[in-house]
Amino acid sequence: MDITALLNTGRQRVDLALARVLDQASGPSTYLADAMRYSVMGGGKRLRPVLVYAAGQALGVDDELLDAPAAAVELIHAYSLVHDDLPSMDDDDLRRGRPTCHKAFDEATALLAGDALQTLAFEHLASLNHPAAARLVACLAKAAGRAGMAGGQAVDLASVGQQIGLERLIEMHAHKTGALIVASLEMPGLLCESSQGERVQALRAYGQAIGLAFQIQDDVLDIEGDTAVIGKTQGADLRLNKPTYPALLGLEGARQRACELVDEACHALAPLGDAAAPLNALARFMIERDH
Amino acid sequence: MDITALLNTGRQRVDLALARVLDQASGPSTYLADAMRYSVMGGGKRLRPVLVYAAGQALGVDDELLDAPAAAVELIHAYSLVHDDLPSMDDDDLRRGRPTCHKAFDEATALLAGDALQTLAFEHLASLNHPAAARLVACLAKAAGRAGMAGGQAVDLASVGQQIGLERLIEMHAHKTGALIVASLEMPGLLCESSQGERVQALRAYGQAIGLAFQIQDDVLDIEGDTAVIGKTQGADLRLNKPTYPALLGLEGARQRACELVDEACHALAPLGDAAAPLNALARFMIERDH
Repeated sequence: MDITALLNTGRQRVDLALARVLDQASGPSTYLADAMRYSVMGGGKRLRPVLVYAAGQALGVDDELLDAPAAAVELIHAYSLVHDDLPSMDDDDLRRGRPTCHKAFDEATALLAGDALQTLAFEHLASLNHPAAARLVACLAKAAGRAGMAGGQAVDLASVGQQIGLERLIEMHAHKTGALIVASLEMPGLLCESSQGERVQALRAYGQAIGLAFQIQDDVLDIEGDTAVIGKTQGADLRLNKPTYPALLGLEGARQRACELVDEACHALAPLGDAAAPLNALARFMIERDH
Repeated sequence: MDITALLNTGRQRVDLALARVLDQASGPSTYLADAMRYSVMGGGKRLRPVLVYAAGQALGVDDELLDAPAAAVELIHAYSLVHDDLPSMDDDDLRRGRPTCHKAFDEATALLAGDALQTLAFEHLASLNHPAAARLVACLAKAAGRAGMAGGQAVDLASVGQQIGLERLIEMHAHKTGALIVASLEMPGLLCESSQGERVQALRAYGQAIGLAFQIQDDVLDIEGDTAVIGKTQGADLRLNKPTYPALLGLEGARQRACELVDEACHALAPLGDAAAPLNALARFMIERDH
């Protein structure tokens, strides 16, 4: 399995889908449309869309049907980054090696661009001509909202400068980053004609494990990575006094836990058989990436 | 038609629906859930939900089915107010006579609360057990996003301190406040079993006219209203050097234009016959209200 080709194919496919969505009905403010495009089209690994395509292919869903959930989950991710970077949140100047949205535009425009990217995700997904469109929206919204990503971000805010234990840290990340990764793997199951109960459950367990592995690797990279490679200010978590896995487990302990999680993730995929090879490769990539 | 009873009935009904939605699956952060509840349950006229119920009743749709779109449009409205009040936008300390969300909580929490209220609107609407659920989401999202409310807000931001003409001001408000009002009137039509083309078109024209009348009356109240009654700082628009209808048409000219728009709105309702009596009364209320 050529992981580079797998990542490139998914990224190129979703980039085309995203460009199409962003070009449609852009509204009365060119400046807002520009800020939205800047925030979405500025690169990025497109990991969540790649997971949508890989899970959909493992379940035999047409790629054409997967474009909408792939683009929608990336729009949600992009909105969350724009708002995360704002001065009242992480106050970051750099994202993917470029000025953050509120630096390139202004703070009010970044706020609105994030808002409108979220709206666009749901508008686009709801417009999919498929009987499961509403269920896709509900799945993605549940993962993005207060019981998912936004809830995890609120716990994260409250944790800055606090001593929190491993259990609370894992719970926070299960919401903050895990929920959207799990939704990326759940949405393709909603597009299947017949019930895929066992395989959908396998994808969910896989998603929970790689979501956590991804976050641990993020913390590891924050310590040992190079700012030029990771595209954001290195050591930002330590500077903000945020709780991290290396702080709780040690750097080596954190690395080892990430490896175990990847093994668990691959093990969970057994019911999908050979069709899961790309998902296996993606799980390994989560901890082998350097940015 | 007893307008007070009409408003109270709709407000009480949607308040129950909103309380139910906010109590479900509130997520890992109590603080975030509290900020969301604070921002939604702090009073307000619930004009958009009242329009949802009145339009639905005019089309013969069950009230039970109208609760989800009524609550969803109010959640979108509430999110927009929370973000509008932030320091990087209007920087308001008071809303509905109480501290704004970022004053009562903090700026980052207000940002997340607005985000999660938007998500909740779409999650709730998409969970409606009805074949039109996805179309309802698409309708509301289109009205809330860059081609609607958020786009209008971006134009509004760019207009502060600028000389803009009447046409541009009307276009801005058609997006900023009009789109959500029109969506409140369009959503019930999506819940009808048979096509209601002419009546849906009538409701749309009605919505465009009252949306503008509503905005003109807001500007009029900003000049002549009393801070204690309107619940926000009086004269805020002038202070922010925002373009207004009274500035372009004079106070009397603005009042007269609002009256004409209400007449147009009521005229548009003709295809709905007697069933439109509540909508007629609501149109009059738009310009007779003192807050």
